Amino acid sequence: MKNSKIPHDLLLEIVEEKHQMLEKIMVEEGIGCWVVFMRETSINPEPVQNLVIGGDIVWESAFVFTSIGKFRKIALVGNFDAKAEESKGIWTEVRSYVNGISDELKTLIKEISPNSIAINYSEDDVSADGLSHGMYLKLREILPNQKFVSAERIIQRIRAKKTESELEQIKLAAQLTETINQKAISKVRLGMTEREIQWIFHQLMDEYEVEEAWQRVSCPAIDAGPEKEMGHVGPTDLSITKYNTLHNDFGIRYNGYCSDIQRMWFFGEDEEIPEMLTHAFETVRTAIHIAAKFIRPGVKGFEVDKIARDYVISRGYEEYKHALGHQVGTQAHDGGTILGPKWERYGKLPEGIIEEGNVFTLELYVKTAHFGMVSLEEMIIVRNGLAEFIVPPQEKFITISHH
Amino acid sequence: MKNSKIPHDLLLEIVEEKHQMLEKIMVEEGIGCWVVFMRETSINPEPVQNLVIGGDIVWESAFVFTSIGKFRKIALVGNFDAKAEESKGIWTEVRSYVNGISDELKTLIKEISPNSIAINYSEDDVSADGLSHGMYLKLREILPNQKFVSAERIIQRIRAKKTESELEQIKLAAQLTETINQKAISKVRLGMTEREIQWIFHQLMDEYEVEEAWQRVSCPAIDAGPEKEMGHVGPTDLSITKYNTLHNDFGIRYNGYCSDIQRMWFFGEDEEIPEMLTHAFETVRTAIHIAAKFIRPGVKGFEVDKIARDYVISRGYEEYKHALGHQVGTQAHDGGTILGPKWERYGKLPEGIIEEGNVFTLELYVKTAHFGMVSLEEMIIVRNGLAEFIVPPQEKFITISHH
Repeated sequence: MKNSKIPHDLLLEIVEEKHQMLEKIMVEEGIGCWVVFMRETSINPEPVQNLVIGGDIVWESAFVFTSIGKFRKIALVGNFDAKAEESKGIWTEVRSYVNGISDELKTLIKEISPNSIAINYSEDDVSADGLSHGMYLKLREILPNQKFVSAERIIQRIRAKKTESELEQIKLAAQLTETINQKAISKVRLGMTEREIQWIFHQLMDEYEVEEAWQRVSCPAIDAGPEKEMGHVGPTDLSITKYNTLHNDFGIRYNGYCSDIQRMWFFGEDEEIPEMLTHAFETVRTAIHIAAKFIRPGVKGFEVDKIARDYVISRGYEEYKHALGHQVGTQAHDGGTILGPKWERYGKLPEGIIEEGNVFTLELYVKTAHFGMVSLEEMIIVRNGLAEFIVPPQEKFITISHH
Repeated sequence: MKNSKIPHDLLLEIVEEKHQMLEKIMVEEGIGCWVVFMRETSINPEPVQNLVIGGDIVWESAFVFTSIGKFRKIALVGNFDAKAEESKGIWTEVRSYVNGISDELKTLIKEISPNSIAINYSEDDVSADGLSHGMYLKLREILPNQKFVSAERIIQRIRAKKTESELEQIKLAAQLTETINQKAISKVRLGMTEREIQWIFHQLMDEYEVEEAWQRVSCPAIDAGPEKEMGHVGPTDLSITKYNTLHNDFGIRYNGYCSDIQRMWFFGEDEEIPEMLTHAFETVRTAIHIAAKFIRPGVKGFEVDKIARDYVISRGYEEYKHALGHQVGTQAHDGGTILGPKWERYGKLPEGIIEEGNVFTLELYVKTAHFGMVSLEEMIIVRNGLAEFIVPPQEKFITISHH
């Protein structure tokens, strides 16, 4: 697949854009010094690599950002990695060591002499939890008297605030997802099974040279008719029957960036759609639209979820058993703030604050009595203080009556 | 690239083979209970995933192996992940939770009541250091009175002991590497630059649908002539001149498994090779062969390195500034025991003991006065108590005189 990874030049462009955001964010979060400590990233990748480093490293390395005095970015790497870091042209300074990183790192931190150092651990957010426990113990030995704090907030903010280059890739991924959806519509026939329909999608993905955004076995998830319990599960031998629905949850990777979109199809004419399905569809669609209207920089994740959740309940349905939305970026589930209720399993993530440049899904389902679930998922970007749909949202069932 | 990932069925086959080794290894290492604790592995992968889990998981999950009483393997996962684990057919039991993992995990550990629990952290070995610090803190909160120990030795041993299915892929990767090397030989001309030669390799890799085993910018590493300092660096505009050497360090991925091989070429006839180069080549070749002869289960990594290192010095050269060999598997540098000197930067890894089923590189260079470095790298597997070369080792310079 040509487009599964971020191309090298684009990666460095994005890293430079992120570095530009960093000084302001570190000052706002009261972090004077941030140390990204990692090794052999081909075996144990660090989720911040693609944000602020831009590539793999082999030996133990410390990438140090400091807003104390003039903003500086120092790469301290093994001698074999030094040339690669220098050639990136993104570091204020590249230092290297031969035998072990300890002495050089001690010296560097002494020069900066921060009150505390932010490091990459988080109980709630996997994308801010890249420091392994073994590396933590090592850092503790090297800097025994140093106070460490979590770099969670810095990481979440720079990851969530998409740059222009990132937005472009996400938009292309979303557009391609819709193109493949359209192509698939013309190939699906009554009587086909979920497995057969997923195969059509996989063929189209190969044709467009794009990779799945999550495990291929459930990407796209395909759900035919009233019996199927939706979720990230693989396709079954259930088949499409007339006057029933088809649902898909589909995402691809384009230049390393993801999409994540759900669509609902109906097998029959527009005027044959049962009232029960129309009511459910309108509920889901409207819940997404009123949530999108509510979103603006400064509101909290759980507040957005509540708007949609309350609306669904007011229309007489059970509330959906997941969060209204997650972020999308290099991962379909990109970590950080979620638009979700304050349930235990979401930790502190629903308390996060929406910022300009964030990309979220808005997704929910309702259950009908006779026709199964109706579920949609749209992607929005927060821009100029408002939520903008990345591709046009689904406004009515895709009806398929020509077969 | 078709062959960059381990195909799903093969992955499950390998996981089953690894599970079969596990009981004996846990007993030998005195580990009664091993807990692999992880979440959202698409964002933050765990190096042991491909060994003992076989796929991604989304929610916080604990995979618990216990040799107390009857050997059991229990997967404790979020309810949305449960079906996927059940369908693998590799677990004694699959348990799931809805709100949070804490209560179920406490219950499970109480049932097993181990003296200590092995968890995945290691200061020395990145491949055994998959537990993030945030997840460690979480585990500490869930099991506040439990003693934790490092699972390093179990992980190193099951990772290093390649199964029949793994060996087959590694062998195919090594053979394809040699095939591409052969094809490249017929296309290289005097006057070509390192960049142009690397491009030839990249074209061939695309043709054979194989991915690079490390960063494409330095895979293969191409080094032309006497001026070039070798290492994992990108190609330059240095070009091939008559009576000089070309060196390449090349590895590919086949079904997710890697190769890593170095070859030396000479531009001229066999009888035109300068005595100085022949002496250097013979030294490197012989050092590799005597190290290979020495290897058998039970010897330690540093002992093997010493054989080659002493020989190189006895022939009047400076000692090479790296380890003689590393393991190869799903990564070109696969972690665990290395065949290296007891230098600080290698930590405890050179003390590791060679076992049946291990795959190592044997690689070293010597520096000549006028013709630059001569460096070779072969791959061996420890089988029936001996080291076997995976593909035939290079016995003399590849001479290119036909252009």
